[in-house]
Amino acid sequence: MAEKKYVYQFGAGKAEGGADMRNLLGGKGANLAEMANIGVPVPPGFTITTEVCTAFYENNKQYPKELEGQVMAALQAVEKIIGQKFGDPKDPLLFSVRSGARVSMPGMMDTVLNLGLNDETVKGLIEKTGNARFAYDSYRRFVQMYSDVVMGCKAEREDEHDPFEQIIDAKKKARGVKNDTDLSAQDLKELVSEFKAMVKSRFNKNFPEKPMDQLWGSIGAVFGSWNGARAITYRKLNGIPEHWGTAVNVQAMVFGNMGDDSATGVAFTRDPATGNNQFYGEYLINAQGEDVVAGIRTPHPVNKAGKTDPSLTSLEEEMPAVYKELETIYHKLENHYKDMQDIEFTIQQGKLWMLQTRTGKRTAAAAIKIAVEMVGEGLIDKKTAVYRVAPEQLDQLLHPMFDPKAKKQILAKGLPASPGAASGKVVFTAEKAIELKDVGEKIILVRLETSPEDIGGMDAAQGILTARGGMTSHAAVVARGMGKCCVAGCGALEINYAKKEFKVGETVVKEGDWISLDGSTGQVMLGQVPTIQPTLSGNFGKLMSWADEIRKIGVRTNADTPKDSKVARDFGAQGIGLCRTEHMFFEGDRIMSMREMILADDEAGRRKALAKLLPMQKGDFLGIFEAMQGLPVTIRLLDPPLHEFLPHEEKEIAEMAKIMNVPVEKIKSKIVALHEFNPMLGHRGCRLGITYPEITEMQARAIIEAACELKKKGLKVLPEIMVPLIGTLKEFQDQETLIRNTAKKVFAEKGMEVEYMVGTMIEIPRAALTADKIAQSAEFFSYGTNDLTQMTFGYSRDDAGSFLPHYVEAGILPYDVFQRIDEEGVGQLIQIGVERGRSTRPNLKVGICGEHGGEPNSVKFCHKVGMNYVSCSPYRVPIARLAAAHAVIEDEKRGLFRDK
Amino acid sequence: MAEKKYVYQFGAGKAEGGADMRNLLGGKGANLAEMANIGVPVPPGFTITTEVCTAFYENNKQYPKELEGQVMAALQAVEKIIGQKFGDPKDPLLFSVRSGARVSMPGMMDTVLNLGLNDETVKGLIEKTGNARFAYDSYRRFVQMYSDVVMGCKAEREDEHDPFEQIIDAKKKARGVKNDTDLSAQDLKELVSEFKAMVKSRFNKNFPEKPMDQLWGSIGAVFGSWNGARAITYRKLNGIPEHWGTAVNVQAMVFGNMGDDSATGVAFTRDPATGNNQFYGEYLINAQGEDVVAGIRTPHPVNKAGKTDPSLTSLEEEMPAVYKELETIYHKLENHYKDMQDIEFTIQQGKLWMLQTRTGKRTAAAAIKIAVEMVGEGLIDKKTAVYRVAPEQLDQLLHPMFDPKAKKQILAKGLPASPGAASGKVVFTAEKAIELKDVGEKIILVRLETSPEDIGGMDAAQGILTARGGMTSHAAVVARGMGKCCVAGCGALEINYAKKEFKVGETVVKEGDWISLDGSTGQVMLGQVPTIQPTLSGNFGKLMSWADEIRKIGVRTNADTPKDSKVARDFGAQGIGLCRTEHMFFEGDRIMSMREMILADDEAGRRKALAKLLPMQKGDFLGIFEAMQGLPVTIRLLDPPLHEFLPHEEKEIAEMAKIMNVPVEKIKSKIVALHEFNPMLGHRGCRLGITYPEITEMQARAIIEAACELKKKGLKVLPEIMVPLIGTLKEFQDQETLIRNTAKKVFAEKGMEVEYMVGTMIEIPRAALTADKIAQSAEFFSYGTNDLTQMTFGYSRDDAGSFLPHYVEAGILPYDVFQRIDEEGVGQLIQIGVERGRSTRPNLKVGICGEHGGEPNSVKFCHKVGMNYVSCSPYRVPIARLAAAHAVIEDEKRGLFRDK
Repeated sequence: MAEKKYVYQFGAGKAEGGADMRNLLGGKGANLAEMANIGVPVPPGFTITTEVCTAFYENNKQYPKELEGQVMAALQAVEKIIGQKFGDPKDPLLFSVRSGARVSMPGMMDTVLNLGLNDETVKGLIEKTGNARFAYDSYRRFVQMYSDVVMGCKAEREDEHDPFEQIIDAKKKARGVKNDTDLSAQDLKELVSEFKAMVKSRFNKNFPEKPMDQLWGSIGAVFGSWNGARAITYRKLNGIPEHWGTAVNVQAMVFGNMGDDSATGVAFTRDPATGNNQFYGEYLINAQGEDVVAGIRTPHPVNKAGKTDPSLTSLEEEMPAVYKELETIYHKLENHYKDMQDIEFTIQQGKLWMLQTRTGKRTAAAAIKIAVEMVGEGLIDKKTAVYRVAPEQLDQLLHPMFDPKAKKQILAKGLPASPGAASGKVVFTAEKAIELKDVGEKIILVRLETSPEDIGGMDAAQGILTARGGMTSHAAVVARGMGKCCVAGCGALEINYAKKEFKVGETVVKEGDWISLDGSTGQVMLGQVPTIQPTLSGNFGKLMSWADEIRKIGVRTNADTPKDSKVARDFGAQGIGLCRTEHMFFEGDRIMSMREMILADDEAGRRKALAKLLPMQKGDFLGIFEAMQGLPVTIRLLDPPLHEFLPHEEKEIAEMAKIMNVPVEKIKSKIVALHEFNPMLGHRGCRLGITYPEITEMQARAIIEAACELKKKGLKVLPEIMVPLIGTLKEFQDQETLIRNTAKKVFAEKGMEVEYMVGTMIEIPRAALTADKIAQSAEFFSYGTNDLTQMTFGYSRDDAGSFLPHYVEAGILPYDVFQRIDEEGVGQLIQIGVERGRSTRPNLKVGICGEHGGEPNSVKFCHKVGMNYVSCSPYRVPIARLAAAHAVIEDEKRGLFRDK
Repeated sequence: MAEKKYVYQFGAGKAEGGADMRNLLGGKGANLAEMANIGVPVPPGFTITTEVCTAFYENNKQYPKELEGQVMAALQAVEKIIGQKFGDPKDPLLFSVRSGARVSMPGMMDTVLNLGLNDETVKGLIEKTGNARFAYDSYRRFVQMYSDVVMGCKAEREDEHDPFEQIIDAKKKARGVKNDTDLSAQDLKELVSEFKAMVKSRFNKNFPEKPMDQLWGSIGAVFGSWNGARAITYRKLNGIPEHWGTAVNVQAMVFGNMGDDSATGVAFTRDPATGNNQFYGEYLINAQGEDVVAGIRTPHPVNKAGKTDPSLTSLEEEMPAVYKELETIYHKLENHYKDMQDIEFTIQQGKLWMLQTRTGKRTAAAAIKIAVEMVGEGLIDKKTAVYRVAPEQLDQLLHPMFDPKAKKQILAKGLPASPGAASGKVVFTAEKAIELKDVGEKIILVRLETSPEDIGGMDAAQGILTARGGMTSHAAVVARGMGKCCVAGCGALEINYAKKEFKVGETVVKEGDWISLDGSTGQVMLGQVPTIQPTLSGNFGKLMSWADEIRKIGVRTNADTPKDSKVARDFGAQGIGLCRTEHMFFEGDRIMSMREMILADDEAGRRKALAKLLPMQKGDFLGIFEAMQGLPVTIRLLDPPLHEFLPHEEKEIAEMAKIMNVPVEKIKSKIVALHEFNPMLGHRGCRLGITYPEITEMQARAIIEAACELKKKGLKVLPEIMVPLIGTLKEFQDQETLIRNTAKKVFAEKGMEVEYMVGTMIEIPRAALTADKIAQSAEFFSYGTNDLTQMTFGYSRDDAGSFLPHYVEAGILPYDVFQRIDEEGVGQLIQIGVERGRSTRPNLKVGICGEHGGEPNSVKFCHKVGMNYVSCSPYRVPIARLAAAHAVIEDEKRGLFRDK
């Protein structure tokens, strides 16, 4: 039997491994091999396989006996390629040693650089570079890094200062300098000795001088780190099996700071801001990688095309041959990886080395442009293009954003409740907002929290800022529906309505002062920050149409008005998944009729008031049905508790009493009677329709009459009547009977029939648990994941601000469960509900209309559990469409690359 | 093959059927046969089996051909026994026809009595009885009943008056009389003709005159009723299979009103009020059954022992021979059925007939006495005795009750929140309650709702009455813990604190007026209703000890003070399942330290205030541990939101500001900051301990220090530290780490260790769903079914009063789910939690500490899902012990008598 192969070499235009050997060579090793294979000049080196790691732990921390010989052979091969020798006091070859598991495990283990330096070889490095300070700085870094990573020389108590930094501080004090960079070559040389002495006194053992000892020490440290506390924790958190093991990459060091024929730089194969197909990058002569990004020296553009300052010469001009080679390489890399690459290179004494290539980060606009153009170039297929654009990114494109170049004076940070950018004058009441808007002012409405009475003011404002409430508070939900910027739950705000001002620390902002809100980051800024309006390119439309071809789950919208419905259709919504009827009861006269109903002493009085609401409600549905012509419209019956429709401030109560000609006392006593300790768990949803059947009857009549009238005109109407807050089959049957009986009456009156469905929200845990029963009568389910999350966790979304941010920060929750579905808990109930519902009614239509319906991970979850559609606010419809396509592609990927 | 038997005869001391043939003969038929078999004189008759019903429906509503012959034979047998002939114009035999399914289906079908009367036979009846009025009244009742039940002659529209009553009304008007009893024999005779004429005009068909036609018509109606709408609905509601079918019982009529040698009566084989072993009953000469209970004539006692009025002669004196026979029969029946019987008898012309025997209803005291004495008499075994006493009944014994003979002026009805009876003067504030109690007054505290600040006043009161809140509101929970009477959620109360009065309709009750509360029925009465104090007999102790021998599930108590703990131990509690630590923070100085902590600006401030609370809290635990010596004590860490500890009224805020020497504004702004929209879903439970770890540390320290100090004294202590409101494993681990680290510190300080456990409440749906994960760390689970019910249904128990009573009335919920566990929904989560928890930790200790832990059906459910114990308020401990024993007995019964 041939000797088992444990070491894979790479360099000089070839490699023993490749990209497909990730399991054996780790991610980094496979990628280095791949680059070498396609002829990209990478510093040569070798990878010790993950099997060695496994064998190491299985065999009492002994290496396979073949390993040493294979490492020596590989090392000599590197020496041959690079023309230097490891440990050569004249011209030493130096190595880096890095770990590399199948998947990236950041922070698992530090890197050891400059391996091979000792008191002898450092002299060779000085000679070679003519730079003693560089050589000794490299040396002292190596000693520090090796002692830490390999020997474990660290601070011993939490309050102790790092032992190396202590020595450096003492040296700087002795020299009377402030910065590390002010230390001389001699100082650094002394530091090396002092470091070694400290290590010796700590461990009673000399710092290894022999390069081979250093190498084996580093290899051992990498394998040892696989079972270190950090790595074990990381594996546990990310579900990485212990038996995977890590590989070790040993690679020749190259230096861009060996003189004026050396350089280092970073570049993108296309413009990461615009997506333009143009090579774009920066470099510095005689510099190390970190110098380019550190900002001490101004980097130069790599090519003439990228020049903005004529005084900065480009690499294209300075080293035309090397630039030419770089161009060839970047084309090769892009063609090979079939994506825009972010590359790092170093030129050591005229020789170009590629240190890294990886997929480049880009803006949303660039992502779309690059993806669509690469399809045109034949580089990738449509599916790949669709998968290249992250759904979350689209947010940038759909809302105005602040000019990234503008100066910002950040005052506070709240929750990014509804994306977009807005500037305006501060007002504290809805009335003032409307008043100023009417005279052409731009305003920002600032409230402790908003209530349905503020809707007019929210509509008039550029943006909304609240001190309380979470991502699903009234302000947040309404603002997202309006596509309006909102920062919610900004706890730092101390609002004083009486003084018409708010404070953040010592800063006072008065009514009329300008502020700016970034709804995508939650930032609140002083003054007027300039914004830019994004435009949707043709590429956007093209990509979205490809996404639609791929996705399997439908995308609807949550919309309560014909205007919102229109916006959502333009964004590609395939129907309305949630039309909240209560929003219709606040406008104009309606609120008075609504209040008349609430104040009525008996059913007859309520029916009288409801009769006034009927034609207005019917009018709403006529408008919405027309806007959605031919597409299904899910209408939710009245949901919020009745007290939300009553005023709560003395002045407003007095006003209402006057208009309605009833005693103030009557209104107040009604408000007291309707008060609830926990309105979220109170008299709302179907509980209203069950105790006041006349409300359900009026709403059912308005829907069915509207549908009949439009059908008579030849329009197609698909109403889906949805009963909220169902917890038991009998609740549903009670409401269903009312609705169907009302429909029958209307049909008889009109002498015609329309098709309609009656279904339910699933938002109460008990509904999910008894979905098999509820599906006996319900024709469709729509998950109200806001409420379902509230009740499954026992969190009030309006109050969770006092602990939820801490939970996410401290890792008690992995993310805000009101933004993204908690698959472990809430997801279980969703899955139970879908399975049990379909066990009774196999063709049960299932959707989601909670806020999660527009969050990409949640959309994927909905796809996974087999929902028919997701529904989200109009401005999130494109995000959901794209996420839905990603879900299909990921299914396919799992099928192809499933781990065995 | 022999002819299949469809008809079973009974009478004359024998029967073809028996009690074990319930499936074939129905309950009534089997019982009549059983009585006949043991030689009890029952009017003879026969039962047509349920198989005929099944065959009837399977065979297109045709009877088996053998049926007619068998019925005729049975009919002739009855004629022979009774010495009369069916349809004999001289001396007619009359029949009753009744349905009888396997299980009683009340209201499924009416009975037809006096069958066999027509214009000829009625004359024979007159002759035989010498009472024309009786005979014609029987006749017109028969025509009316038959026409209704068999022919379907009913009002045709809802608003129509019953057609027979219309004719009777016309007759009374014509005769100028008011009551049916004022009509003469002639009038009744005319009614018979008029009834028949009306039936004929309606159905164009003569009323059947031939007795045999009447009989077959009635039999057909009974079988037809099995698939009537009422029966179908009843079967659906009660899960009775359609194929069971009903039997038909045809039985000879007997009359107690055939002269002075006839009589009728009812009796109990033992005294149903006291349980004394003494025959007890009432009878009337020349009367029908309904006359005894109608109250028009004063019934006489059956025997001399029962005489209270010397002027009333007993049956023992009037008809000594018949009485002797009755005595023999009642002994026979009691010995046969082995339980106290409630019997009905009729004496027709000197001949005693038993019409019915059934288990007699009895008071709790009687139930216990009879059950225990019957064991002594060798009639039943201990298990049967235990099963004879309904756990719910014990409530009567454990609380004072109103004298059943007292007159009551009922003012309103609320929820029976905490059992017992109480009278006192009305007060509206806790202060006033304490003030009056101190001068020896009995008072009733009346509040809109109570809060923790009212505890002193609740303690001072005889009873508590609230206008809002449900069975698990603060008032209800605290009152039950105190064993104090409480009526909660009495919505009819309009309380006016300013005027110191409340109104119910037009009645005004002022401070100082006497009212009385019945906490077992929810009644609120005007004035002072006398109460009686029940005493626990030796029989009670004996029965409970038998229950303890039988039951498998443990019974603990919810107790927060040494006093409550003592009461509960006396009632047999085997430990504390829930000790709520927050109640400890309201007394005396503690509330000030608590408030100091809440007002503190930082952790250091909080720690300072907590340091003051530590010794007090430790003192509480010392007292409770000592009271429960050797028994486990589950201590729940702080649960309620912090704002509950702050005052909310101006006056109290000012007072607090003065005492604490802080600005009123500071307190107010803290109150605003802590305000929550839905406190039930807010910053409470473990969320407090996670955001303020110092609170958990203080509590853990108090518990562990107290345990150490007692162990040092040689006492056994078993603390179980319980973290509330856990929804995720990480939350639990966060708190567990704090607790264990604190314990380690205390152990180090004290130089000793104690055993303790750390576990969690399961009260959040998500906790049940992820119980497998939570059990990785939690050593025990305790179901908080109050919160679990709230969140599973999305009901706030404090607000559910606006719809929950309607839900129960309308049958949308089968019962109040805050009183009894909803097995379908909440029960699923409980079961999931137990199964998943034990899948991770097979020996996981599981209990319940919600209010349901003392409700018998819920205790049985807890037994069924395999919990280790239930925990309930001290006064419900005996109820839980008995229910737990019933659960075991029912398991055994199911094993024996499972339906095939």
